[in-house]
Amino acid sequence: MQLVEEPDAFSRALDRARDAGASIGLVPTMGALHAGHRSLIERAVAARDHVAVSIFVNPLQFDRREDLDRYPRTLDADVSLCADAGVSTVFAPRAAAMFPADSATSVSVAGISARWEGASRPGHFDGVTTVVAKLFALAGPCAAYFGEKDFQQLAVVRRMATDLFLPVTIIGCPTVREPDGLALSSRNAHLSADERLAARVLWRALVAGRDAVASKEDRPGAVADTMAAVIGTEPLARLDYAAAVDAEDFTVPRSLDAARELRLLVAAVVGAVRLIDNCDARVPSVAAPRRAGRGDRSRSARAALRRDAEGSGD
Amino acid sequence: MQLVEEPDAFSRALDRARDAGASIGLVPTMGALHAGHRSLIERAVAARDHVAVSIFVNPLQFDRREDLDRYPRTLDADVSLCADAGVSTVFAPRAAAMFPADSATSVSVAGISARWEGASRPGHFDGVTTVVAKLFALAGPCAAYFGEKDFQQLAVVRRMATDLFLPVTIIGCPTVREPDGLALSSRNAHLSADERLAARVLWRALVAGRDAVASKEDRPGAVADTMAAVIGTEPLARLDYAAAVDAEDFTVPRSLDAARELRLLVAAVVGAVRLIDNCDARVPSVAAPRRAGRGDRSRSARAALRRDAEGSGD
Repeated sequence: MQLVEEPDAFSRALDRARDAGASIGLVPTMGALHAGHRSLIERAVAARDHVAVSIFVNPLQFDRREDLDRYPRTLDADVSLCADAGVSTVFAPRAAAMFPADSATSVSVAGISARWEGASRPGHFDGVTTVVAKLFALAGPCAAYFGEKDFQQLAVVRRMATDLFLPVTIIGCPTVREPDGLALSSRNAHLSADERLAARVLWRALVAGRDAVASKEDRPGAVADTMAAVIGTEPLARLDYAAAVDAEDFTVPRSLDAARELRLLVAAVVGAVRLIDNCDARVPSVAAPRRAGRGDRSRSARAALRRDAEGSGD
Repeated sequence: MQLVEEPDAFSRALDRARDAGASIGLVPTMGALHAGHRSLIERAVAARDHVAVSIFVNPLQFDRREDLDRYPRTLDADVSLCADAGVSTVFAPRAAAMFPADSATSVSVAGISARWEGASRPGHFDGVTTVVAKLFALAGPCAAYFGEKDFQQLAVVRRMATDLFLPVTIIGCPTVREPDGLALSSRNAHLSADERLAARVLWRALVAGRDAVASKEDRPGAVADTMAAVIGTEPLARLDYAAAVDAEDFTVPRSLDAARELRLLVAAVVGAVRLIDNCDARVPSVAAPRRAGRGDRSRSARAALRRDAEGSGD
């Protein structure tokens, strides 16, 4: 395994591998690698000949300086994990190499980037898409692996890659969870023991939302209220948002079975740590319209069939 | 020569050529090809094995709908010119293929995009960089040829390619002029006979600005005033802007010999046709400082030497 710091050297390393006939996998990360990242890396290693992991704590995607400063950095352990998992190239650039002082170009995705995480963290997704566009350009044609833990990020990156005709196949990978349901996140390291227990409330809220959908609740607001109420039972947690959204553009559908595909989202601050989580939710298959005047049954039914065929997320 | 309409087919055609060992040249155009475009194409054909010309009237870079509607479209003649000039692939996509309805991603360059042409035509450069980023992604590694006629566009595209680590070498090519100095432009077709004569005033203004610089005028404002005054002598022309700027970031330098490299710009409306033009201008070489306290002589002198070594533009 090689560790490279310079963008040019990274690009050349992947060009050499490609010229030798290797298929390329890319796993973009901010380091502090955990079992969730490891599952992305393993999936990439299983599918592609030459896997590169980028480790870069991207200053552009942090809306608060103190969040950037305290983001965990564990490069030595990260490099060991990568070597152990069969990674071929680790790319760990300096900030000044990715964003020189005269750098002035940004990539942004309208609409979806302004919602939920984008509303709570102004500029966040512009920072993500700008740095990911740079990583994709350096990597060249490849498959890129992103966790469904950051489901909105995955949707934004997918939109960008499609719109800009990038020669990159975006692959979303299921969230890895602790036995009690907590989604793995580098930020979990900041939780105290009490907060760690309290953090289970995010997954409990999602399960309650999923149950509500399964019970044929079809008002997005009612599902969101159900999830918010669960978060509200935990004194150490403060709700940021809970929502049931269209999985592609992250708008709230008029009714749940009008969504092409549904995703439940929660964000909450536990102690001083902001956590997010999400899951899919299946609208029960429809025997007959429950009320008149709903025109998008068949599309919804087709979407449900497609979900069954592809398998679900977490 | 092949003519392709679909982005996928364009991308595959260039991949095949590259796989066969060909170097790729790309000449992005909005069609209505004239001798200026032809000089870009010939330069590309001389230097690269497989040259692609894109012909796409990009709706995003027009700030006024009527300007878009009346932009000249001459596809058959354009295709003939390309075939005659040795082009291998013409890419002429439909607008809906380049910008599907759910397309939401934009690429923008801060700073330089807001000045001069950007100030006069809000959103113009964002439209340029967004479509050029898409064309570059489809084309893959290549050399791309742009005319110095749109010098600010060239600088914006160069900045984007550098910032996003795109595998594209940007090559600026000298402006082609009519014998009386008028820069070739697809918009010249809209000029009446009287306006065509009046349009010579842009080049006359630039020559006057260049003469002022050669006469050791080192106040950018004074050079701009000289050019504006020349435009003012022509009753059919209305000045938009005249400026002496840094050729890289398009800011106005404190004094002309403080610019890394200097560019003179004019924009004027002649009849109903908005025209732009530009030229380089050499700050006379310096024997001794003319006044105390100027610290950047040596940088200026180095820049002048570099310009001499590389040859000049138009």
